[in-house]
Amino acid sequence: MATSGRRPYLWIFLAAALASFLAGFTVGWLSKPLKDTATSADSHQNLRWKLISEMKADNIKSFLRSFTKLPHLAGTEQNLLLAKKIQNQWKKFGLDSAELVHYDVLLSYPNETNANYISVTDEHGIEIFNTSYIEPPPDGYENVKNIVPPYNAFSPAGVPEGELVYVNYARTEDFFKLEREMNINCTGKIVIARYGRIFRGNKVKNAMLAGAKGIILYSDPADYSAPGVQPYPKGWNLPGTVAQRGNVLNLDGAGDPLTPGYPAKEYTFRLDVEDGVGIPQIPVHPIGYNDAEIFLRYLGGIASPDESWKGGLNVSYNIGPGFVGHDSFRKVRMHVYNINKITRIYNVIGTIRGSVEPDRYVILGGHRDSWVFGGIDPTSGAATLQEVAQSFGKLLRSGWRPRRTIIFASWDAEEFGLLGSTEWAEENVKTLQERSVAYINSDSSIEGNYTLRVDCTPLLHQLVYKLTKEISSPDDGFESKSLYESWLAKDPSSESKTLPRINKLGSGSDFEAYFQRLGIASGRVRYTKNRKTDTYSSYPIYHTIYETFELVEKFYDPTFKKQLAVAQLRGALVYELADAKIIPFNIQDYAKTLENYARSIYNSSRKHEQACRGHGVSFESLFSAVQNFSEAASDFHRRLSQVDLNKHIIFAPSSRNKYAGESFPGIFDAMFDIENKADPHSAWKEVKKHISIAAFTIQAAAGTLKEFL
Amino acid sequence: MATSGRRPYLWIFLAAALASFLAGFTVGWLSKPLKDTATSADSHQNLRWKLISEMKADNIKSFLRSFTKLPHLAGTEQNLLLAKKIQNQWKKFGLDSAELVHYDVLLSYPNETNANYISVTDEHGIEIFNTSYIEPPPDGYENVKNIVPPYNAFSPAGVPEGELVYVNYARTEDFFKLEREMNINCTGKIVIARYGRIFRGNKVKNAMLAGAKGIILYSDPADYSAPGVQPYPKGWNLPGTVAQRGNVLNLDGAGDPLTPGYPAKEYTFRLDVEDGVGIPQIPVHPIGYNDAEIFLRYLGGIASPDESWKGGLNVSYNIGPGFVGHDSFRKVRMHVYNINKITRIYNVIGTIRGSVEPDRYVILGGHRDSWVFGGIDPTSGAATLQEVAQSFGKLLRSGWRPRRTIIFASWDAEEFGLLGSTEWAEENVKTLQERSVAYINSDSSIEGNYTLRVDCTPLLHQLVYKLTKEISSPDDGFESKSLYESWLAKDPSSESKTLPRINKLGSGSDFEAYFQRLGIASGRVRYTKNRKTDTYSSYPIYHTIYETFELVEKFYDPTFKKQLAVAQLRGALVYELADAKIIPFNIQDYAKTLENYARSIYNSSRKHEQACRGHGVSFESLFSAVQNFSEAASDFHRRLSQVDLNKHIIFAPSSRNKYAGESFPGIFDAMFDIENKADPHSAWKEVKKHISIAAFTIQAAAGTLKEFL
Repeated sequence: MATSGRRPYLWIFLAAALASFLAGFTVGWLSKPLKDTATSADSHQNLRWKLISEMKADNIKSFLRSFTKLPHLAGTEQNLLLAKKIQNQWKKFGLDSAELVHYDVLLSYPNETNANYISVTDEHGIEIFNTSYIEPPPDGYENVKNIVPPYNAFSPAGVPEGELVYVNYARTEDFFKLEREMNINCTGKIVIARYGRIFRGNKVKNAMLAGAKGIILYSDPADYSAPGVQPYPKGWNLPGTVAQRGNVLNLDGAGDPLTPGYPAKEYTFRLDVEDGVGIPQIPVHPIGYNDAEIFLRYLGGIASPDESWKGGLNVSYNIGPGFVGHDSFRKVRMHVYNINKITRIYNVIGTIRGSVEPDRYVILGGHRDSWVFGGIDPTSGAATLQEVAQSFGKLLRSGWRPRRTIIFASWDAEEFGLLGSTEWAEENVKTLQERSVAYINSDSSIEGNYTLRVDCTPLLHQLVYKLTKEISSPDDGFESKSLYESWLAKDPSSESKTLPRINKLGSGSDFEAYFQRLGIASGRVRYTKNRKTDTYSSYPIYHTIYETFELVEKFYDPTFKKQLAVAQLRGALVYELADAKIIPFNIQDYAKTLENYARSIYNSSRKHEQACRGHGVSFESLFSAVQNFSEAASDFHRRLSQVDLNKHIIFAPSSRNKYAGESFPGIFDAMFDIENKADPHSAWKEVKKHISIAAFTIQAAAGTLKEFL
Repeated sequence: MATSGRRPYLWIFLAAALASFLAGFTVGWLSKPLKDTATSADSHQNLRWKLISEMKADNIKSFLRSFTKLPHLAGTEQNLLLAKKIQNQWKKFGLDSAELVHYDVLLSYPNETNANYISVTDEHGIEIFNTSYIEPPPDGYENVKNIVPPYNAFSPAGVPEGELVYVNYARTEDFFKLEREMNINCTGKIVIARYGRIFRGNKVKNAMLAGAKGIILYSDPADYSAPGVQPYPKGWNLPGTVAQRGNVLNLDGAGDPLTPGYPAKEYTFRLDVEDGVGIPQIPVHPIGYNDAEIFLRYLGGIASPDESWKGGLNVSYNIGPGFVGHDSFRKVRMHVYNINKITRIYNVIGTIRGSVEPDRYVILGGHRDSWVFGGIDPTSGAATLQEVAQSFGKLLRSGWRPRRTIIFASWDAEEFGLLGSTEWAEENVKTLQERSVAYINSDSSIEGNYTLRVDCTPLLHQLVYKLTKEISSPDDGFESKSLYESWLAKDPSSESKTLPRINKLGSGSDFEAYFQRLGIASGRVRYTKNRKTDTYSSYPIYHTIYETFELVEKFYDPTFKKQLAVAQLRGALVYELADAKIIPFNIQDYAKTLENYARSIYNSSRKHEQACRGHGVSFESLFSAVQNFSEAASDFHRRLSQVDLNKHIIFAPSSRNKYAGESFPGIFDAMFDIENKADPHSAWKEVKKHISIAAFTIQAAAGTLKEFL
């Protein structure tokens, strides 16, 4: 018994020792920290939902109300005060930093003591009709000071006089028609063009190239009035008494015209204004359609070639040159006295520092400066930017911090040629190019109230689809549906009816320097009109004194839910790009897009099939490069790591309309109007060169996706 | 007893349980792997010593012997065979890959059925003297085929005839003297220039700009013979019967003249030869000094201005134009029949894949093609490259693998304008620019046998100092001393006598595309002559048929220990850059260098002090940028992380001599000869612009060093 009596103790002892050892092992194992603590995918998603639900329509409304009481023209004291207000709010929200960054750029203002106008002169040179100097202010804004009258920024000063020619939209094709079919020479003439279809800077350049000595821009009701809608303030249509402001630079992304390629700092060398980039050499001035009708009514000369040249005024839309019958002695005289001035502008730059990859940046930027009150442009965007920043601040306070750094930017002087955003890109080019993950634009969040509009790099298509499925639709009839569902129902893609339409990025807002020049993946989202039924250009009141808070509140988004949906999508995009473990880019969508573009540029070459063959132009190298890229992309997605594609041989603002995006712009431009080139050999050589460049670029991109060695 | 008898068991039990728990805890703690296993600094250093001691002088000798038996002109079958041989050896050494990469580039060869020569014609146009077609072959090479006769690659074909003018070295200052002081107009003349001082391409360009219709290049004994040394084969001086080959392109880094900016692949668009980059428009041909003496002896006209225009031949060095006295009817006629031909060339690219950062590259590259046997240029370098690769292969076999990827490159067609290296850089520009850590060049390892010569980015100065202290000096009288010690004793820096001299990088070898264009930190090391006493240009036999294995073995490095020391330094640099945990760059040395350059360009402006003040030129922004950079660099070194500086606003090949490195080249060029500019206002404006650009660039560099946000 004694012996056997001790056996159980031994067993118990051994068992206990083993248990203690295991317990010790377990405690030892568990108490040692792992270096890399995984955050669960669940908590990432929960936080995204939290961010989206933090945002409130009422907050956006009150930001919009607060930011649109006064004009905020770039370079003015009032716009600096707004910059400081935004800076203080960002600090209050809890951002890690919020700084003002200034540049001294060339701006252009009307002369305060010598107003711009356009007149009709009689045979003695007496001015018998003058256009209005200013617009009648909207109700409640009668006593507001510092409202800049309608003008085209960077028009040179000048008083040209001459016969008038109506040039439709002043597009390349319009001047082709005038010169080639109608035999009308615009040299020495003053031309009048309607706004719309293309960027106004291209119109001025075209007029200049055609030899005109001045150009009048006006908004025709056909382009700026929707049928059955009343002019403001009864509806959202354009009244005849107001005119669209806007700059007429052809900058090609240069930013400040005097410091191309370099930031406009105190120490920077400046070109003389005569050598400034993109500044037109003929006077240009905008007018409303009431004034325009006076000029158009008496135009004589040749009749307009077809219906596409006729606008919505009750006139015949003759081309000219000059006025009819006994008015043929009458001329048009422009008075433009604009002044160029190197002026200090201010961006506000705020940051939330990343926790894991602080040297990778996701940028959310939109402009703050407006022509007058900026009810839609840009403040419907600036208000959403503010609400997104506030919501990120709330997440931060709950202890969250994104993997990567988020940069918020309130740009200045966008209206003068994207100046604030471009100068900041130029100052920080090395750092931004190497470290930026993506740029999301936050200009106007509504240009219509029908459905969502998205323009972005193909890398972001899948992410946009995913996120819009998580955001509630603000549209009537889509209660309890997702934004994705209403968007798909209202604007399906033309290639695939099962996906909503996404457009390529053109230009005309602050993403340009980031997307086109630095090659950073970029996107913009906003609410828009019905592209099928609403054929007017932009929104009618665009860049006039009537772009007020009331315009938005009464007509575009009374509940502010559409702007909320836009804020939620912008914010969620930033959140995913900054916080997802693997940056949510889809290279295969880029590959598919390349295939489409290659097919499309090839198809547009087929109308020159014989010439292509004759000049030995082949697209084979391009298709082979695209094929190589597609394979590398598939392989890359298998290997699932990250790459930042930046090759804008693929995208560019169209050279004939800065607003539009063009695919394979080099090849496209080389083939444009090729049948009329004086030297077909060198013209086709140019086409071959551009195919070769595009092929190389895609091969090089494929190279960055492959395992290099 | 029973009760108390059980107590000890309890104690033992508890003690044992505790011991087991602790044992378990310890095993649990220790058995769990840490993610980041630190390699000790000791083992890193031991491996470096192992790598250095792996290399053997005899191996370099046998590679040199084997690679120099036949000519290896770019574009020939023999050079392709050598590429394949090197590829196979790299595979045998154990590299992870070794591939041939081809390009189709424009090369230039003599016409095989129509030899180049230069003649003197009499008054009837009869050729009464002709220069030699070929060089007498060295002993033992009499039956070697495919030896290209002396010529200047890319000279256009042509048979110009005219009076002769002697233009010294054909430098900018030589033509200034001719035109401004001696009133000699070279328009329509044939000029004769001596080789040396500047790159031959610059001489041809200068002659062309001066209006000459042809240029003869010759090697003067003053520049290509050391006193007291016999001509080859008795010594290493230049005999009068041979001539220096060489290309005369002014490429500015373009690579293949027909595909600037793009790789010369099958699909690439090519310029017409007339539009090719840098191709001169006047015939040029090289001759030896025996032939040159015939032309120079009878030159008449004006006497040479001073001793600096007189070479080492027994002639008066008159300037001309034309011959003296009764020979004044005689003219000079050049016969150049070179043919341009798009030809396939082959780089060999080998890799050792990095274990930790496989997507960071350290490149060791040197060319393989030679004008004839290439005894020194490039094969003394190619042989060291081979020995470095072999030694890395041995380390690999012992189980080691570098942190970062090492790329070995055997470039083709360097002699035709750095073509192979530039095309590869162009093909892989995106990848290389973002991922390359450093480029080390492996052209000729000896150009003299006196001491070490190092040209590199300031980032590498400290590393070079450190490594040369670990390598044995090969110099007589420095037995058991380090390479650093003999180098410091023989060539101390002019600024600090306590450090050996390190030069800035110019151009003239394959690092150009990597350093100047892609901005990758680069360096080159080799053995050189005594800069104080040896005033002849390069090594006398350079680019002639006598550049053989025997030249190296008999005169330059009989023990091959100097080439060994160079191989060890090149290899150790690659090892440290590829394997050190923190890339061993010293940004503070870069900051110091910037300070020196800023002071130096400022000092050179002081001779124009009044003009600077008058035109409002200030260097303040530049100094302030440099100051900002220095502070950021100090701070950065405190934070000790890595950055790749790539801003070649700071360095460039001189525009008047491609071989030389220039600091602040933009400012320097803008101030060059400024007192003779027709429009001082715009000339000084140019200076201001370049100061602004340099200041911005340094500010931007400082920005990349700082914590950005």
